[in-house]
Amino acid sequence: MKQEIATVLNRVRTENPLVHNITNAVVTNFTANGLLALGASPVMAYAPEEVAMMVKLAGALVLNIGTLTTDVVDAMIIAGKSANKHGVPVIFDPVGVGSTSYRLEMAERILSEIKVSVIRGNAGEIASLGGKKGMTKGVDSVASKAEDDMLLAKSVANQFQTIVVMTGKDDVVTDGTDTYVIHNGHPILTKVTGTGCLLSSVLGAFVAVEENHLLASVSGVTIYGIAAEMAAKDTVHKGPGSFQIAFLDQLSKISEENIHRFGRIEKLEQ
Amino acid sequence: MKQEIATVLNRVRTENPLVHNITNAVVTNFTANGLLALGASPVMAYAPEEVAMMVKLAGALVLNIGTLTTDVVDAMIIAGKSANKHGVPVIFDPVGVGSTSYRLEMAERILSEIKVSVIRGNAGEIASLGGKKGMTKGVDSVASKAEDDMLLAKSVANQFQTIVVMTGKDDVVTDGTDTYVIHNGHPILTKVTGTGCLLSSVLGAFVAVEENHLLASVSGVTIYGIAAEMAAKDTVHKGPGSFQIAFLDQLSKISEENIHRFGRIEKLEQ
Amino acid sequence: MKQEIATVLNRVRTENPLVHNITNAVVTNFTANGLLALGASPVMAYAPEEVAMMVKLAGALVLNIGTLTTDVVDAMIIAGKSANKHGVPVIFDPVGVGSTSYRLEMAERILSEIKVSVIRGNAGEIASLGGKKGMTKGVDSVASKAEDDMLLAKSVANQFQTIVVMTGKDDVVTDGTDTYVIHNGHPILTKVTGTGCLLSSVLGAFVAVEENHLLASVSGVTIYGIAAEMAAKDTVHKGPGSFQIAFLDQLSKISEENIHRFGRIEKLEQ
Repeated sequence: MKQEIATVLNRVRTENPLVHNITNAVVTNFTANGLLALGASPVMAYAPEEVAMMVKLAGALVLNIGTLTTDVVDAMIIAGKSANKHGVPVIFDPVGVGSTSYRLEMAERILSEIKVSVIRGNAGEIASLGGKKGMTKGVDSVASKAEDDMLLAKSVANQFQTIVVMTGKDDVVTDGTDTYVIHNGHPILTKVTGTGCLLSSVLGAFVAVEENHLLASVSGVTIYGIAAEMAAKDTVHKGPGSFQIAFLDQLSKISEENIHRFGRIEKLEQ
Repeated sequence: MKQEIATVLNRVRTENPLVHNITNAVVTNFTANGLLALGASPVMAYAPEEVAMMVKLAGALVLNIGTLTTDVVDAMIIAGKSANKHGVPVIFDPVGVGSTSYRLEMAERILSEIKVSVIRGNAGEIASLGGKKGMTKGVDSVASKAEDDMLLAKSVANQFQTIVVMTGKDDVVTDGTDTYVIHNGHPILTKVTGTGCLLSSVLGAFVAVEENHLLASVSGVTIYGIAAEMAAKDTVHKGPGSFQIAFLDQLSKISEENIHRFGRIEKLEQ
Repeated sequence: MKQEIATVLNRVRTENPLVHNITNAVVTNFTANGLLALGASPVMAYAPEEVAMMVKLAGALVLNIGTLTTDVVDAMIIAGKSANKHGVPVIFDPVGVGSTSYRLEMAERILSEIKVSVIRGNAGEIASLGGKKGMTKGVDSVASKAEDDMLLAKSVANQFQTIVVMTGKDDVVTDGTDTYVIHNGHPILTKVTGTGCLLSSVLGAFVAVEENHLLASVSGVTIYGIAAEMAAKDTVHKGPGSFQIAFLDQLSKISEENIHRFGRIEKLEQ
């Protein structure tokens, strides 16, 4: 697996895929810099008049509802339909989808009109997409939190016929049948805004070059977590400002050897 | 006073208040990272359809008109009214309010429809809010610039029944009756964009946890200034890029001991 | 020439020109911080209701279509007309103009309604503005790529009666008659988002203080390239995150001596 991951990373670096992001106002700069550091080419374009044409040039489309407005959702729908028509994979990041009913409604609108290849969110966001019904736990449930999360991720993957990347202390990647848990990453990631959003865009770069989207997603999550660990090594005692910069640096430097040495990928039995 | 400030900072770090920002396009990322570094939780949400619900989840609402448009002001009014209704304190940052008549008109609209707990601006911005009449100085005025500024801040605090935080070389915090001058901070703050805006959002985090908003505001201004001094110590010779990163680091590290050692808070006689 | 460049830089630092940017969502923060580091004062304002008044306060207006929408283009037209009326020079950055027909249409609308002093783009963007007809090359063309680029830049400068700054491995600055090639800069600039956009805004700061816009443009491009080289010296082995921060630092520190020592400006024979 690790060699396959290294190969996919190498393809990102040599093919420089164009990733079209319709993302939130907070993370545009960090997302663009993260993709550039990795070796991909970012483009942000939001105008309804141009997104259908722009996405045709791209290797992937990333839709992120972090600071959505109705105009932007309209542009997302146009871009997403064009992506679906032209075989461009779509990544969906349902930021804060459980916070307001409007956000949930918009997320459901996107998922009903667009076929997405990957959904990336935290456990709460994935649970919201899955509906509360599947998430209730009996008092005598014997499942652990981690087992619950995996069942949730698989259930949502099957519901939307997509890959689900559920990030947290450990990261779960599943297509509803095969499931991987990646044990890389570092808690300081939660102290920098947009690290989840950037991961979604990084997944765009990986699915743009690798048709096996499950492998692409596992690869993206793994290298992201390793880069965070390497960046944290020198900066965690300094603080999140220094970490953020070191993390961008490490995204540009992470090597095949780093993947072999630090990667902690576990395939679950079905 | 210093021990009280340390206690309020500690509450921010342990309670992780959610701060809802409707802020300008330039500073979203820096604001979110500053709040995260401090220990608060930022959320940015602008859609008129969701802001009323989002602000109910928050401990404070920060309204910043740095790159306002009429749509965004409409969202600010909706969010502000919801905040007022649900007892969520509102911070107002009238960025560049004196630059254009449109900006002044929008600021006046916000202040007429929303009860704000804190206004944070520089002397020029506070003067614009107060109207020119109160600001004319006779040729034989004997008041110093600093005394004028304090009178101005008190006058605007009384006019809008709010706390005024007027930042500059020294920072003035007043509720119209009691007035504090904080002598912390560093000139290099003016070489990084959004340091005033981030302070407004930091004040949001402090009023979210401390009901005495005067104490909360003095606390926020003091720790902010100390973090800037500590960051400048190692970076002022390098430049504003390095300072910005070190400042985020210091917001995450500033300690009770730092407050006792470096805090320079002066209470004025009435 | 180098002494003239040092003098213009010094004027930027002492006159602190206000640069009004209507720019894209990705680069607002980096642009503002770059201008501040240089010694200029940035303002971003987009509301159609205020841009005409805001630009009257400014020394230059920068229009950047990186994430354009029709609303923003409308504001650009209003601001641009006000700038033309009040003698405020306008810089135009046609980001990605060749990517979609909408973007080209909007760029042509701006150039037909606004008189711009400087257009800054890469070779592809400048070629798109010039129309494809002028760009076709016969199979037996003996012109080198560099010679072609210079002819293209001169042709577009004459077409729009403006200065063209065409950035790439080497940077070309021409008013259609006189042409300079600046051999400064560093490839790592392409690994940080918005470095082209920030240069456009830096050119705004330079034309704001120096009426000879050709000299101003050569000056801006030269100091920008030198700052990048100095920043790269210590950070290129670390990565693009570290470079970005060091670059902001160097913009604040670049000295007359650095210009004399590192500047590589070539004036072409006509």
